[in-house]
Amino acid sequence: MDQLNALVQYGECLQSIMNEFFNVLPPGDALKLLFKYIKVLDNNELIAASQALGRVLAEDVSAPHALPTFQRSTMDGYAVRSKDTYGASASLPSFLEVIGEVSMGEEAKVIIRSDQASIIHTGGMLPENTDAVVQIEHTQRIRDDQVVGSRFEIEVFNAVAPGQNVVQVGEDVGKGEIILTGGRQIRPQDIGALLALGISEVRVIGRPVIGIMATGDEVIDPKEQLNPGQIRDINSFTVASMCERAGGIPRLLGIIPDNFERLREAAELAMESCDMLVISAGSSVSVRDMTVDILGELGHPGILVHGIATKPGKPTILGAAHGTPLIGLPGNPVSAMIQFLMFGVPAIYRLQGVQPHPTAKSTWAKLEQNISSETGREDYIPTKIVETSQEILASPIFGKSNLIFTLVNADGLIKIPLNKGGVLAGELVEVLLF
Amino acid sequence: MDQLNALVQYGECLQSIMNEFFNVLPPGDALKLLFKYIKVLDNNELIAASQALGRVLAEDVSAPHALPTFQRSTMDGYAVRSKDTYGASASLPSFLEVIGEVSMGEEAKVIIRSDQASIIHTGGMLPENTDAVVQIEHTQRIRDDQVVGSRFEIEVFNAVAPGQNVVQVGEDVGKGEIILTGGRQIRPQDIGALLALGISEVRVIGRPVIGIMATGDEVIDPKEQLNPGQIRDINSFTVASMCERAGGIPRLLGIIPDNFERLREAAELAMESCDMLVISAGSSVSVRDMTVDILGELGHPGILVHGIATKPGKPTILGAAHGTPLIGLPGNPVSAMIQFLMFGVPAIYRLQGVQPHPTAKSTWAKLEQNISSETGREDYIPTKIVETSQEILASPIFGKSNLIFTLVNADGLIKIPLNKGGVLAGELVEVLLF
Repeated sequence: MDQLNALVQYGECLQSIMNEFFNVLPPGDALKLLFKYIKVLDNNELIAASQALGRVLAEDVSAPHALPTFQRSTMDGYAVRSKDTYGASASLPSFLEVIGEVSMGEEAKVIIRSDQASIIHTGGMLPENTDAVVQIEHTQRIRDDQVVGSRFEIEVFNAVAPGQNVVQVGEDVGKGEIILTGGRQIRPQDIGALLALGISEVRVIGRPVIGIMATGDEVIDPKEQLNPGQIRDINSFTVASMCERAGGIPRLLGIIPDNFERLREAAELAMESCDMLVISAGSSVSVRDMTVDILGELGHPGILVHGIATKPGKPTILGAAHGTPLIGLPGNPVSAMIQFLMFGVPAIYRLQGVQPHPTAKSTWAKLEQNISSETGREDYIPTKIVETSQEILASPIFGKSNLIFTLVNADGLIKIPLNKGGVLAGELVEVLLF
Repeated sequence: MDQLNALVQYGECLQSIMNEFFNVLPPGDALKLLFKYIKVLDNNELIAASQALGRVLAEDVSAPHALPTFQRSTMDGYAVRSKDTYGASASLPSFLEVIGEVSMGEEAKVIIRSDQASIIHTGGMLPENTDAVVQIEHTQRIRDDQVVGSRFEIEVFNAVAPGQNVVQVGEDVGKGEIILTGGRQIRPQDIGALLALGISEVRVIGRPVIGIMATGDEVIDPKEQLNPGQIRDINSFTVASMCERAGGIPRLLGIIPDNFERLREAAELAMESCDMLVISAGSSVSVRDMTVDILGELGHPGILVHGIATKPGKPTILGAAHGTPLIGLPGNPVSAMIQFLMFGVPAIYRLQGVQPHPTAKSTWAKLEQNISSETGREDYIPTKIVETSQEILASPIFGKSNLIFTLVNADGLIKIPLNKGGVLAGELVEVLLF
């Protein structure tokens, strides 16, 4: 057994050395390695809390005061001293004298003494000496001819306990409590919580600027005239859209000619103003090699991963220079998009220091067709999702990885885990939803 | 049996009459009824395809030409006539003369005749007469001393079939095919597809303007000084954030005093410039009643639903006036947010004519604590989600429905279906994710 363990460890060690050598890593390991070299941006800014949707808090926020700030009724009815209602029932009601009304939005001025009550509305402030609210349905007003001035009497048919139908001071949040922690990506309800406490500004991490350039002699701007042998650049725009969704500011740097010096100059220039650099390489090997050389020279540590054990997208390049992530995407649009979802989008969240790290939304679905794969490789297959009343079905869309319409027609990506040789029809698969 | 059926039908009929009378509907029926009276906006606009993320197509878009526009290689290697490789193997290779190279981004000028080949790169255009690509790994170049001019000979070890390692003209999409249908909400890959075809502008539905007002004498602007008995308006801002996420343009109309004439004037004015009106009512019954009266007078058909069989959020009001949806939300922030997710967000998608209708992202999780409910009522309980390696757990957050921090601390909402009296710990529940 010990021998076996030793052998397994030796194998794992060898595997890791080989991976290191070839820089080809499984996607999970590749992302971890990239994350090690990404620095959270330090360009914080103070913005209006009401405009902070999707932004990431740079620091913890605590409550300047308790919420609610006063005891509030949760019912329409009568504010009472609970002990005056003890034992009350339909056959033996308590009799209380109603001596006033709490106006909405105002301090309750009436002071309640023994066997007295005050009209109160939902959200109203409890008067002094009261500790509970009897809902109006559990009371009956006594005949009007018994009214003295504005006062009248009620019968109470149900006893209330102290605090019943009341929200206590600080029941929502206590003074000084940390309400949102640094790294939080702000949601609608978080904006509500900030404003409820009168916090009108928050310090957030700056939105990272993502430089995006394309290379390849066959690639032209989509607005130009298309000649035989050319294709329009689309990766710059799909990547830009994904950047925006993740909170980044895409900066399109255009198509750089397939020339070492020109591409290096463009990359160096981009590094001065961008927080992340993405190069969508042409599809030929020579352009990819050039991209590796250029990304490797931009700063420490340079290239981290050269190839991912995944399909599509094996030729992806990951690196970093002084805390700035560098991503070299394969030229074909399907690989480029899937790889950017796997590495680019998480990197943008990382630059903003989002905690906990957001994960892609996914669902489990029953596979409708066999899919083959290879152990040691993580595969992503575009799929349609069909929901029946009984189950969720994944119907894979097969097609060469350079056909953008496989993604246009898909609702998500089936993930075939690293060490599964394939999946049979009828098995449950995880589908990452677009 | 016939008698039983008759009885069941009678019961259903009675139920429907009663529902009609009280206007209290289950959430699903309420949404259907609201949808019947919402008109898709007709203010289309032409915008840049690259800026169309999240917008909704006003019309079908078809392909102006086939994609790809030329036969492309998917490998680095040699473009060949497949029949010249038939029978080739390691022991009996085919010999081919390489007479040129296809430059990236240019028309292949070389013409290949019998037993000839051309160097080609991934993405390169196949030369005339060739129909397949032999990948470079399956070939070997013959000694350089046999080279004549720039020509040289190779051995091919693997036969290729016609079309092998080639993407055909139109394989991605055919000329004239409808690529995206009207009602489609545009995703990154859709932008890619449009630009790949040189479509630089698209006609989309205008973004709906959502008028949002708050009422209630206790409600103040978050920037104002808070006095006893007052609370800050937060519903306007949580609703505005949710509007933005759904593609709407929120227009904050402020806090309208608790006065019939003032509120009616404000609502009528809003109707002139907004595509949907949301009133977050104060929490007292009188303000809610006033809201119903005002929403009911804005146009045909007026109030559709007055009360939803759901918790929290029963007092929600739904209506429409000449195609414009009207929503009266309960004053308390948790109910308001949940109800807006259930009705407001779908209404915004409906105004934009999104097809198919987007559904909230959800997951199934194992409930950690018993939850009680009532049959005939759909409940939504804020919950934390904990993912272990084994399972997804839902840990409900209990709290009065006016505590905003129950939502701040939650990852989603557990849905207890209409006719379930409650759910036991250990059962699987659907969780709508924020």
